[in-house]
Amino acid sequence: MLACGWTLVKHARRRAGRAKGIEVASVASAREKVKEPATLDRLTALLKTDLDQVNTLIVERMQSPVTLIPQLAGHIVAAGGKRLRPMLTLATARMGGYRGQRHIALAAAVEFIHTATLLHDDVVDASDLRRGLATANAVWGNKPSVLVGDFLFSRAFQLMVEDGSLKVLQILSEASAIIAEGEVLQLVTSNDTETTEDAYLDVIRAKTAQLFAAASRIGAVLAERPAAEEEAFEAYGRNLGIAFQLVDDMLDYSARQAELGKTVGDDFREGKITLPVVLALRSASEIERQFWRRTLEDLDQREGDLERAIELMTRHGTLVATLDRARQYGEAARRALAPFRDGPEKRALDEVIDFCLARGY
Amino acid sequence: MLACGWTLVKHARRRAGRAKGIEVASVASAREKVKEPATLDRLTALLKTDLDQVNTLIVERMQSPVTLIPQLAGHIVAAGGKRLRPMLTLATARMGGYRGQRHIALAAAVEFIHTATLLHDDVVDASDLRRGLATANAVWGNKPSVLVGDFLFSRAFQLMVEDGSLKVLQILSEASAIIAEGEVLQLVTSNDTETTEDAYLDVIRAKTAQLFAAASRIGAVLAERPAAEEEAFEAYGRNLGIAFQLVDDMLDYSARQAELGKTVGDDFREGKITLPVVLALRSASEIERQFWRRTLEDLDQREGDLERAIELMTRHGTLVATLDRARQYGEAARRALAPFRDGPEKRALDEVIDFCLARGY
Repeated sequence: MLACGWTLVKHARRRAGRAKGIEVASVASAREKVKEPATLDRLTALLKTDLDQVNTLIVERMQSPVTLIPQLAGHIVAAGGKRLRPMLTLATARMGGYRGQRHIALAAAVEFIHTATLLHDDVVDASDLRRGLATANAVWGNKPSVLVGDFLFSRAFQLMVEDGSLKVLQILSEASAIIAEGEVLQLVTSNDTETTEDAYLDVIRAKTAQLFAAASRIGAVLAERPAAEEEAFEAYGRNLGIAFQLVDDMLDYSARQAELGKTVGDDFREGKITLPVVLALRSASEIERQFWRRTLEDLDQREGDLERAIELMTRHGTLVATLDRARQYGEAARRALAPFRDGPEKRALDEVIDFCLARGY
Repeated sequence: MLACGWTLVKHARRRAGRAKGIEVASVASAREKVKEPATLDRLTALLKTDLDQVNTLIVERMQSPVTLIPQLAGHIVAAGGKRLRPMLTLATARMGGYRGQRHIALAAAVEFIHTATLLHDDVVDASDLRRGLATANAVWGNKPSVLVGDFLFSRAFQLMVEDGSLKVLQILSEASAIIAEGEVLQLVTSNDTETTEDAYLDVIRAKTAQLFAAASRIGAVLAERPAAEEEAFEAYGRNLGIAFQLVDDMLDYSARQAELGKTVGDDFREGKITLPVVLALRSASEIERQFWRRTLEDLDQREGDLERAIELMTRHGTLVATLDRARQYGEAARRALAPFRDGPEKRALDEVIDFCLARGY
């Protein structure tokens, strides 16, 4: 019993630790005047009643006589907070004219799948430890993270099975397999400075955009809309997810991240090859290339290396270029919504695109 | 790319390392004359055609463009080998008179769920490392183990969704959630010398017996047998699974384990509280209790401690008592089969009970 309460405390400390942040060069040059800061407020307000029910169901279905499960799950479910993915299901279902209650359980299932992948993402290897990447605290929680993740993943499938739609089950079980593939591919490309932009896009399409796409699509399935509408929602979710991840990967090297209360340079310390790095490598001189190989392949990182990385990215404009790619995917998401009739849900989904992009400015 | 091939090698070394074994006191006193050693041969021969198809499907469905996935999955899928759980599905389906092809995919799904839990069981914590439990090699593979496990778990659900039976999906998604609960409960009871026999039984019922029960039940579901037969198969699987795990937990302290080419004392080193320990604690003197607290709660283990543990278990007869409990559950499994008509499948399933028990002698 003792071991586990303790694990939880370590987890809490770890997450708190992330909020410290460090000061780095600004990417102010990449910022533009945005009319007003886009938020998720419109969507959240619109879906409030549904979202309250989803949250109630989430708390209800993460219960277990094994108390460590709701303790640990509650920690991450409560912390995550935005509920962006389940809101996509709620919004697309409403937009398709669905008036039943099934979207509540399926939105909860989507959030459980997301939470399970977050928990499994928390798992660290001893090699990370040896590199001094993770604090010892971060590591004590491997086993509970994996097992509680498995529990939530199983719960997600139980919710879907209770719902009874084989089509939804097909979409979300396929998404789960693809997410796992994407995570493994990310592992394979880690520390590999030869990673191409295409390989990077394969990773984020799978690990992030697939769940955005599936969450958006199942709303249309519930509403029994024609295949073309399902595909339009899927395209919206997929492009939104890619934009979201691109901004995330840019933020890891941006002072904006510190302003948001998160640490900068996590990806760098792990040797993750994200687009800002891929693009910086493309323009790199031989000396710069050596720098990237030492820091990201050999993970031989010294004082000032993160600052140097950001300086190189700024010099070659790769953070701006990454944001620019994100904007292009954002526009593709917007085009996917174009055929739909105007209305509050459509306007809210449109604003989600702005929200995802605005995080980068 | 490099990092991953390397991970795989470490994994291979680790598994090979397990086969070394150490010499410990014998539990010969617990052995009885067994007429002839029970094996799975009858069952395997009976199901050969089906089993070949299951194996082909397993290899087919663990493929992925991300080559690390089939590499790592192939390693553990090939190594595991017995295919005991999928054979339960194949055998009960045949016994119920099922003559179609659906049992092949569902048996593969059962094996994928089992393999995923094995992979997730491989995950180690830094705390294990600090205790000197795991070799560094064993730890390098945390992340791939988790992610490939997730992939196989998702594949299992895809296979079930393709099959299309919501009832089977319900049984196996519930089993998956219960397995995860059992694994977390095992974590919670680890290092807790106050763990009761009931708590221990809760753990093994969930983490092991639930999948045996589900695998056996879905054969009857496929064959569209009445509820009473489904329940009889489920009772067979559940009791068999409990017997199987009891023998496994006894073997961890038995010279027989070394004969089987596996290391002795893994559970002891991890501070797992299994039945031989629970029973030894029940009869322990104050000095013995201090020994168990030091070794299992504080994990302060010294040269000769494993031998002392085995000596205490032998003195208090807890290994024999554990085997005896296993035999009782084996008999319950046999009683569950009693109502069924005699035939080759029934005789083979009966022999599976003897096989599980005979591992302990």
